Amino acid sequence: MTSLITMDDLTNEEIISILDIAEQMLPIARGEAYTPILSGKVLANLFFEPSTRTRMSFEAAMKRLGGSVLNLGDVSTSSVVKGETLFDTMQMMDGYADIAVIRHPRQGAAKYSSDAVEIPVINAGDGAGHHPTQTLLDLFTIRKCHGTLEGLQVALVGDLRYGRTVHSLSGALARFGSSLTFISPSSLSMPREIVQDLRNSGVDIVETEDFLGSIESLDVIYMTRIQKERFPDEEEYRKVAGVFCLTAKDLVNAKKNMIIMHPLPRVNEIAPDVDSTPHAKYFEQAFYGVVARMALLCRLLEVDVQEAIE
Amino acid sequence: MTSLITMDDLTNEEIISILDIAEQMLPIARGEAYTPILSGKVLANLFFEPSTRTRMSFEAAMKRLGGSVLNLGDVSTSSVVKGETLFDTMQMMDGYADIAVIRHPRQGAAKYSSDAVEIPVINAGDGAGHHPTQTLLDLFTIRKCHGTLEGLQVALVGDLRYGRTVHSLSGALARFGSSLTFISPSSLSMPREIVQDLRNSGVDIVETEDFLGSIESLDVIYMTRIQKERFPDEEEYRKVAGVFCLTAKDLVNAKKNMIIMHPLPRVNEIAPDVDSTPHAKYFEQAFYGVVARMALLCRLLEVDVQEAIE
Amino acid sequence: MTSLITMDDLTNEEIISILDIAEQMLPIARGEAYTPILSGKVLANLFFEPSTRTRMSFEAAMKRLGGSVLNLGDVSTSSVVKGETLFDTMQMMDGYADIAVIRHPRQGAAKYSSDAVEIPVINAGDGAGHHPTQTLLDLFTIRKCHGTLEGLQVALVGDLRYGRTVHSLSGALARFGSSLTFISPSSLSMPREIVQDLRNSGVDIVETEDFLGSIESLDVIYMTRIQKERFPDEEEYRKVAGVFCLTAKDLVNAKKNMIIMHPLPRVNEIAPDVDSTPHAKYFEQAFYGVVARMALLCRLLEVDVQEAIE
Repeated sequence: MTSLITMDDLTNEEIISILDIAEQMLPIARGEAYTPILSGKVLANLFFEPSTRTRMSFEAAMKRLGGSVLNLGDVSTSSVVKGETLFDTMQMMDGYADIAVIRHPRQGAAKYSSDAVEIPVINAGDGAGHHPTQTLLDLFTIRKCHGTLEGLQVALVGDLRYGRTVHSLSGALARFGSSLTFISPSSLSMPREIVQDLRNSGVDIVETEDFLGSIESLDVIYMTRIQKERFPDEEEYRKVAGVFCLTAKDLVNAKKNMIIMHPLPRVNEIAPDVDSTPHAKYFEQAFYGVVARMALLCRLLEVDVQEAIE
Repeated sequence: MTSLITMDDLTNEEIISILDIAEQMLPIARGEAYTPILSGKVLANLFFEPSTRTRMSFEAAMKRLGGSVLNLGDVSTSSVVKGETLFDTMQMMDGYADIAVIRHPRQGAAKYSSDAVEIPVINAGDGAGHHPTQTLLDLFTIRKCHGTLEGLQVALVGDLRYGRTVHSLSGALARFGSSLTFISPSSLSMPREIVQDLRNSGVDIVETEDFLGSIESLDVIYMTRIQKERFPDEEEYRKVAGVFCLTAKDLVNAKKNMIIMHPLPRVNEIAPDVDSTPHAKYFEQAFYGVVARMALLCRLLEVDVQEAIE
Repeated sequence: MTSLITMDDLTNEEIISILDIAEQMLPIARGEAYTPILSGKVLANLFFEPSTRTRMSFEAAMKRLGGSVLNLGDVSTSSVVKGETLFDTMQMMDGYADIAVIRHPRQGAAKYSSDAVEIPVINAGDGAGHHPTQTLLDLFTIRKCHGTLEGLQVALVGDLRYGRTVHSLSGALARFGSSLTFISPSSLSMPREIVQDLRNSGVDIVETEDFLGSIESLDVIYMTRIQKERFPDEEEYRKVAGVFCLTAKDLVNAKKNMIIMHPLPRVNEIAPDVDSTPHAKYFEQAFYGVVARMALLCRLLEVDVQEAIE
């Protein structure tokens, strides 16, 4: 692995190895220890689409390890406006940085960028394509809370049609042998080809519109935001949006160690009264984005963490 | 003290202690010494309203001490636009940073943010509310120039009605026993309740529209910007704005060690010919913003400066 | 030299000395070595006009050497909007940073800024004025590829009328005894006074509209972007733009070690098939911007590189 474009770039062993390194990063990410193993290294943060969480967590990851960050900044005032191609912009970054993170509205842009340069490139979202570091942090969160990625009952809820997060996570969980429940309004159900691929590879899948019917059996509920603008009719949206909203009282029958996740930002899919339940893990999940990215940066920059930390 | 929301969070002893630490920071802030006592620490700079001076001086303060800064960046392209609540944004910061600085248009937002997270929060202006680090640097400047905060004659000039800076400074100076002269057009006079509170606590206060009448007796003239948009009638504005403009020739009767301060940016309240007089301290005052913030960051991050520096 | 406003601030010896230091910076800029000789130093990046390449390469230069960067950020939301003068903004920077880089739409703004403060100021472009660090990196690239700045045949191509880059580079190359060929449509030819000055100082100059006629004799082809908006008539633009486009097949008669340069961003002046020829040096040139700026920062901050590196 020299770049990370999709989760298919990683074997299961490599995923586990990254999660193990991420585990070691926890005290550094919390500011309890300072181990500047990336000092002198420069990350280029290339967000051709706005991002707060992903951008800032990569920046935090780099700085917690002593590295530096160059921000492309607002694309509307960058050289992109003067007609520069993505290829040329990437050549510039090849000379300025040791590694680049790219988010771009065009599917395939991260792969194209990675092919254009010698430095490692991390895909932080390419349109309807992939967002593998979100999947890494999701897996880290699940393993952290349940001690394993295997044999879990995981429900993915909300917009399963357009959400690149849930597509990628489904595939990854399937590789580790978890069972999946897809809960969505029919208009936003998981794309047929993804469901078919998963079933072909032997994954146990349930599809339903019944939000809370199976809650007692679940280990993970992964909520996503349903975007109003996907619906032609606002009335249709309101019906659906109202149903897929988790509240504290919905959780009475849940397993004690069932966890609720969300890639954030949330709007109203999870009521504030859920925040104080022991099930709520979405804020911890956001924090785990820092350690997952720290681990990935170390791997791609070929820093031997064991040696550096000891 | 675990956060700084208003000056009321600090005892007089704590204020003096912060000013003492700020004094020790001077060579580091000037780049004459480098003591990275905050290395590995991460500050989140959350400016929901634009700011140049306050934002950059916090950033300089952190970096002079070896720390790192995460900028939320332009709010119009952040997750706030996707409907994220301030509570949720703060949870994210709680996971990314060791301390946060927040400026927000809504009064009370800093307190709300501080209550939402475990990391210390510094209020850098909450609408018509408070801006305590401005007061700390103002106090530092006065003490630096006069050697004391006690027994001084301080005039506050200009827009005393809307300026949070002068409200907060009045209260702080009163706590140290200085006498106050409030000089403003009647339409922009200090709010009645503030004047009453100060008088009730025994402070000697003069209110006047006469700009330069008492200049011989003053130790400090604190100028502020009169904002045109406060006046319904441009003619009214012009009359007032012209009168409250300090020029070098106005200073002939001033005490030798009288100092002129301004929170900046200035527009035309202080003529450029004042800049080269020994009274002009507003640019030094801006610089002292760095040391005052360095001291505060060390306090809130619980770094023992004495031990670290020696 | 305490600031760098135009190339006239540097003697030939000083230029050579900066290029020599830049040479030593190569492994650090490539991330192969980390020598934080500017740790604790703070650079203020003041871009009153948008810039991607120059801004990011100064930032990379500073960070590769362990220094920190303060960005003024988007001018449309800065204190400049509140009516602050450039003089006052610079006073603030004098207190926050050890050195400042300024790009400003107004010719003369860099000199004015430099006169206003005690810290060194680097001109990164002042309207139609100067952009000396571009010239330093251009000279570095030429010397790196040809081993010398003397006795070369250099063609400058494209918009020679408005481009501050080619004005400044012509003068510098002339000082080192290279011969110049100016290739442009007549409407965009090199200003008469520049040509006259160069000829008066004994430089060998050819002016032509014939793009490729003399290619066999050239050591350097320096391409520039022709901006559509310079032409009153789009038809006129298209005729010219089509002619001044370099393709791989144009290079068959070129010397083996002839190099092609471009300040970037390019639009269509150089076809992508040129990129893979050994003549293409424009991406390396962009990278050399980092080392040239590293060297300059060390010089102006008075860091003894020899001593620091050994």
